Amino acid sequence: MSQTLRLIPIGGLGEIGKNMLYVEHGNDALIVDAGLMFPENDMLGIDYIIPDYRSLLDKKHLVRGIIITHGHEDHTGAIKHIANEFDAPLYATPLTRGLVEVKLRDAKMHADVTLNTIHAGDKINLGPFGIEFFHVCHSIPDGVGLGISTPAGLIVHSGDFKFDHTPVDGWPTDYSKLAEFAGRGVLALLSDSTNADQAGWTPSEAVIDPAFDAVLREAPGRVIIATFASLIARIQQAANAAARYDRKLALVGTSMIENSRIAQKLSYLDVPDGLIVPIDEALRMKPKQVVIMTTGTQGEPSSIVNRLAEGRNRQFDLHELDTVVFSSHPIPGNEEMVHRTINKLLQRGARVIYDPIAPVHVSGHASQEEQKLLIHLVKPKHFIPIHGELRHLHQHAANAREVGVSPDSIAVVENGTVIDFKDGEMHVGDRIPGGYVFVDGSGVGDIGPSVMREREALAENGVVVVDLRLNGSGALASTPELTTKGFVFVRDSEEMLGGARAQVQATVLKHTGAEPEVVKEKVSSALADYFYAETKRRPMIFTVVS
Amino acid sequence: MSQTLRLIPIGGLGEIGKNMLYVEHGNDALIVDAGLMFPENDMLGIDYIIPDYRSLLDKKHLVRGIIITHGHEDHTGAIKHIANEFDAPLYATPLTRGLVEVKLRDAKMHADVTLNTIHAGDKINLGPFGIEFFHVCHSIPDGVGLGISTPAGLIVHSGDFKFDHTPVDGWPTDYSKLAEFAGRGVLALLSDSTNADQAGWTPSEAVIDPAFDAVLREAPGRVIIATFASLIARIQQAANAAARYDRKLALVGTSMIENSRIAQKLSYLDVPDGLIVPIDEALRMKPKQVVIMTTGTQGEPSSIVNRLAEGRNRQFDLHELDTVVFSSHPIPGNEEMVHRTINKLLQRGARVIYDPIAPVHVSGHASQEEQKLLIHLVKPKHFIPIHGELRHLHQHAANAREVGVSPDSIAVVENGTVIDFKDGEMHVGDRIPGGYVFVDGSGVGDIGPSVMREREALAENGVVVVDLRLNGSGALASTPELTTKGFVFVRDSEEMLGGARAQVQATVLKHTGAEPEVVKEKVSSALADYFYAETKRRPMIFTVVS
Repeated sequence: MSQTLRLIPIGGLGEIGKNMLYVEHGNDALIVDAGLMFPENDMLGIDYIIPDYRSLLDKKHLVRGIIITHGHEDHTGAIKHIANEFDAPLYATPLTRGLVEVKLRDAKMHADVTLNTIHAGDKINLGPFGIEFFHVCHSIPDGVGLGISTPAGLIVHSGDFKFDHTPVDGWPTDYSKLAEFAGRGVLALLSDSTNADQAGWTPSEAVIDPAFDAVLREAPGRVIIATFASLIARIQQAANAAARYDRKLALVGTSMIENSRIAQKLSYLDVPDGLIVPIDEALRMKPKQVVIMTTGTQGEPSSIVNRLAEGRNRQFDLHELDTVVFSSHPIPGNEEMVHRTINKLLQRGARVIYDPIAPVHVSGHASQEEQKLLIHLVKPKHFIPIHGELRHLHQHAANAREVGVSPDSIAVVENGTVIDFKDGEMHVGDRIPGGYVFVDGSGVGDIGPSVMREREALAENGVVVVDLRLNGSGALASTPELTTKGFVFVRDSEEMLGGARAQVQATVLKHTGAEPEVVKEKVSSALADYFYAETKRRPMIFTVVS
Repeated sequence: MSQTLRLIPIGGLGEIGKNMLYVEHGNDALIVDAGLMFPENDMLGIDYIIPDYRSLLDKKHLVRGIIITHGHEDHTGAIKHIANEFDAPLYATPLTRGLVEVKLRDAKMHADVTLNTIHAGDKINLGPFGIEFFHVCHSIPDGVGLGISTPAGLIVHSGDFKFDHTPVDGWPTDYSKLAEFAGRGVLALLSDSTNADQAGWTPSEAVIDPAFDAVLREAPGRVIIATFASLIARIQQAANAAARYDRKLALVGTSMIENSRIAQKLSYLDVPDGLIVPIDEALRMKPKQVVIMTTGTQGEPSSIVNRLAEGRNRQFDLHELDTVVFSSHPIPGNEEMVHRTINKLLQRGARVIYDPIAPVHVSGHASQEEQKLLIHLVKPKHFIPIHGELRHLHQHAANAREVGVSPDSIAVVENGTVIDFKDGEMHVGDRIPGGYVFVDGSGVGDIGPSVMREREALAENGVVVVDLRLNGSGALASTPELTTKGFVFVRDSEEMLGGARAQVQATVLKHTGAEPEVVKEKVSSALADYFYAETKRRPMIFTVVS
């Protein structure tokens, strides 16, 4: 009797199967990707979120390998956590491996993890799995999708992809391999849903070139281009444009410099000698001779772009004739911060260029027509949309139905859902236990809903600490002291806080001789009522009775 | 010698001149609009933000009238604050007046404010100002723009507008009046910049009709349409579609019912008898006979849509065959909450339709080609983009330059900037003092940056209160008590908190006999170091020594 092939998408937050996918057959398993998610705006104080693989820990001995499809944070950022729990060799293309190595070195885990370099076109065998890596275009070079041959059939995993006919590195997605898979028969296709609600075809990276040309041609002074540190292709395009307009290129920011260094060393970035100059050299040149490239496209407070916008960058200031280009889109949730940064840059006299004002950024993910093309190329028996929120998966399923995939052959599932294949049939099972694993400081998974609710309450109305000294007979030994933070501006609220002290005194008087616990509770409750009546706010109140 | 005409855009937050505009000539002044802004995600605990008119209070005796261009919150929501400070009669069209009256009644100010009804096409005189109201299309009916004749020249104010050739109420923007203004000579045009970065022409409200038809035709059960309570035109369109598909329409939510009642009474909503039914009647009908219309398009936690998404709506539940339509776009900053709500609705089995999946919403603001048309129609001598963030104003200025407005005749300014007109020339002056006026509970303007920073710190890492009892000789009289909120999950952190108590004991021992203030400071600082070492978090620490 044939064994079951089991797939479980695991995720950090709302996107499904993006950060991690678990593949199991018999006593062998694979992990695909090891990424993190950034918290949403109301996840107060959280640094990042990792896939909830806790239910898989009893299967850790089954895992034969961890495969990373490309070098983005949402596919690599949890590597130190995952490689720490699952003791299996890593497989990645040269650039992806280079970027993962930096993370492992930072976590002082480099010596403990076996790293293997693979290339698009390679095939490796891990237990019963034969894994073929095929090249896909995306907003970072050297991304791959996977063909995973299993005893139950062939699974195709798109990775993050688009069909770019004119990519910056001249390396299109591997159509022939996809067609070849179709010829062999594909049990299931797992495909990137990020842009499932975008009609048409995602523009090629090539549209950036004329946009950059226009910016450099018209810029009266320096051009500062902000983009993601991983967008090596964009750095290439900026370098090309700089060369065309006789400007030098300076890179600023640790991650961008580090990534470019790795990409250059591995020949993913091809820049003529002397084009890239150190920033302090660039700062001594005529403004019209300079392009500066940096990170900070998301309005992050500590980024160079934001420091320039607020006039607090140490190394150099924003000039009136500077042109700042946001070669990026705001990540959902960051819109306000990005727009605020743009407004501040304009306020300081800079010119600011961003999409939709000019086409200085394109998405790295397939739109609807590309998603349909992938389905037509691969001709899968079953279809599992992944890499997107539930709404994207549902729309991707609708797109698949449009091109003839039967509704019964599509599985739209949430993270943790077990999908089994047996005798060529797909069965959607239950969800394994799981939720959010918040990382806050050095704590992993120790912050849950109750702590989050306390943070929300503190953020909403602040805190009041009451220091209450009682004498032997239970009367006040001294005037009660009130300390507030985040509640009211103390200097303007003396009268109201005086009233609060009177309220405390009256309450203690009324309950003289009661147990300290009772006094404490009565005082807190009287103060809560008083504060609400006076301010319509509900600060958190701590009363210390001694 | 001629007198100066002065304009000062006043705003609550990042958008310029949207919430309030101050117009002054000699000893007479006008206020245009009295709106509020909603706080950004990192403005913790703030309810809303009102225009900072504090510097104008010494001119309050000059104000001859307060004119409201249309009934949206960002033009009406601060009326109770502004009408309280500036004792002048209000002027608004019937629907706008109806909506403002509700606010004044809620604030128990109805008896104190003089309300005057005006109509598009009317002209009134207030001191030296002759004000002509002209109809503009927008996403609420009965909106007007203003032609303000002053001794210094004619000012045209667009209000919030679009050029819709097929608006739901059949009432296009008043092109002839705009052309007539041009014939008389326009000193300055103030124009809506919201969509300045959107190419082309904003689609007509008419595109919604076939989209609603498709939804109602294909819906296997109830259709629940969420939209803004002020979007009377959308309620009309839903009613029309319901009638076409033999469904009844039920309205849910106080503000939507109240607004519809006012709109119906004033004939801005034309619905056949018997089409609108109470919700409890609708709930007894067959699902395919029902359209429910409600608010909650922004994922607000307490809205009906979000309660349905989370399965905690009291009056009725979501059914598997329900179709939920978001006839709206997320307001910037709300994207995460909206998408989370959509995902939860899908999770519960509903079908969800939203733009861009189907064209079930269009903007109420002019895009680039419409903005250019307005300039061509009005032929202003000077151009002042308003109603947008600085980035929109800059782009609107670029659009104006494209159609031949001289750069010297354009003023891109921030809120509080004085713009003077004298002898036909425009002079941009300094900014009057001002900033954000946060409303939090009953406090207006009492929360500033320092309190916000405290709230941020509390939100980030929570709070720890240490209760320290010393005996006469300065040694600990009892084990120190630690209370935490929003810092760690206490049940899982007993060991770490035990270590913290030991840290406190060691610190007190080391400083036995020192002043209580010194002990307090040393304990707080030792704990801060300990917590950071253990958790990489920095909670706010309050030490109470007694």
